Amino acid sequence: MGRYELEYPRDAVNLIKRHGERGIYALEKIHSLVNTSQILHVSFNPPGSPFPVILPMIGQMGSFDRPSASLGDPLDLYLHGYVSARIFNASRAAAATGEGDGMPVCVAASHVDGLVLALSPFNHSYNYRSAVLFGHAVLVESEEEKLYAMELVTDSVVPGRWRNSRQPPTGAEMQSTSILRVKIASGSAKFREGGVSDDKHDLESEDALNSIWTGVVPIYSTMGAPIPGPYNRVELPQYAQFFDDFGNVNKENSIAAAQK
Amino acid sequence: MGRYELEYPRDAVNLIKRHGERGIYALEKIHSLVNTSQILHVSFNPPGSPFPVILPMIGQMGSFDRPSASLGDPLDLYLHGYVSARIFNASRAAAATGEGDGMPVCVAASHVDGLVLALSPFNHSYNYRSAVLFGHAVLVESEEEKLYAMELVTDSVVPGRWRNSRQPPTGAEMQSTSILRVKIASGSAKFREGGVSDDKHDLESEDALNSIWTGVVPIYSTMGAPIPGPYNRVELPQYAQFFDDFGNVNKENSIAAAQK
Repeated sequence: MGRYELEYPRDAVNLIKRHGERGIYALEKIHSLVNTSQILHVSFNPPGSPFPVILPMIGQMGSFDRPSASLGDPLDLYLHGYVSARIFNASRAAAATGEGDGMPVCVAASHVDGLVLALSPFNHSYNYRSAVLFGHAVLVESEEEKLYAMELVTDSVVPGRWRNSRQPPTGAEMQSTSILRVKIASGSAKFREGGVSDDKHDLESEDALNSIWTGVVPIYSTMGAPIPGPYNRVELPQYAQFFDDFGNVNKENSIAAAQK
Repeated sequence: MGRYELEYPRDAVNLIKRHGERGIYALEKIHSLVNTSQILHVSFNPPGSPFPVILPMIGQMGSFDRPSASLGDPLDLYLHGYVSARIFNASRAAAATGEGDGMPVCVAASHVDGLVLALSPFNHSYNYRSAVLFGHAVLVESEEEKLYAMELVTDSVVPGRWRNSRQPPTGAEMQSTSILRVKIASGSAKFREGGVSDDKHDLESEDALNSIWTGVVPIYSTMGAPIPGPYNRVELPQYAQFFDDFGNVNKENSIAAAQK
């Protein structure tokens, strides 16, 4: 309602330099991109290794203190560590050494929306949306906050699934599940939308124009028909409509991006 | 033909600890995963920043010295930097400070193949294939090797597209394009395939079995109908068959993974 749109301040860490006109700093756009990514890539520096590490993880923006916060508000990122215990150990180590901020991480969310095929290979591109967040990760200790984050993350995979699966969690499940909370320091995003664009000298080449197909091929992620498991007894529930919606929305978005 | 399968040696950097039985070290499997990823996530530590950075990039495994090498051979990773100049500057800085190896990077390739929906939210999972490579990145200086890598990367996006687009590159195009070569130090991959699996106490719960849908929902990336650009004059070429094949192969793989 006419409120200004919050942005992450531009600094040396998050500034988009190349194609700066494609740079996006609005919290709402960046957080939306993160929340619609089925997989996030999380990078950190494990103690004693020369290499940063990337782990694919599932995550979601949220606010435990203000669960009704909107996507354009300052939010934390909750990460669920299916993949490896290293990031949790490194986070614990960072906390133990008195680096009260937590472990520095970078989190990336990327969608490829189309192939952009131009006359010159150098004007080929993807339509894409990508975001990065920088922040400090700590382990969530409170049981209440862990439950909040688990529901948030589960429902990001299939909306409504948490309350439609076996509840409540057992003590063993709560103990064996780790959640990281990332306090965001900065972030930015970059979008590429639209059709092909070639240089003048190629657009004047009859030879090139008469032989090379140019345009955009939309790309999107979709879901196939659900395959019931060996002990399933029930019909597909109403919230399974999401499986169809997922592909349809992605398809529409990829075509809309091509036509911008 | 009966030759042993090369593996990356297991060490502290690449060892898969959690679900170690899912760990994969074979070069062929890891390189295939990288080469079928439309987007790679590349992490490095820019000088002076507390945070590692992740950039989405396009890349491909190859060998300039032995172009006929197979996917199971030791290969380099060639990265094309559409996204930002920071990684190239950091690589230059690493070279300048006498760190002859180049800039330490981690590169991740990830595919989500399905939602695994179990009785307990804690047994929910993705079917997925993910790989990481660790290595040292340097800028490619030789024009011949740059051309080799550009063709390799372009044809990874659409097979055959390089020779079917405007050739040869102009001097300006060669100058403005940077290619990184990553010498691989180590790598590993992790796959999750198959159906749902729940704990005994849930499988004995009539209440859970009678109310919760369980099974796998395949997920795959596909391409929509090509949208010709405003100056396109030609019919879809024969190699455009790839656009259909891409989605069909991904769909089959995601269903096969669910049924394993």
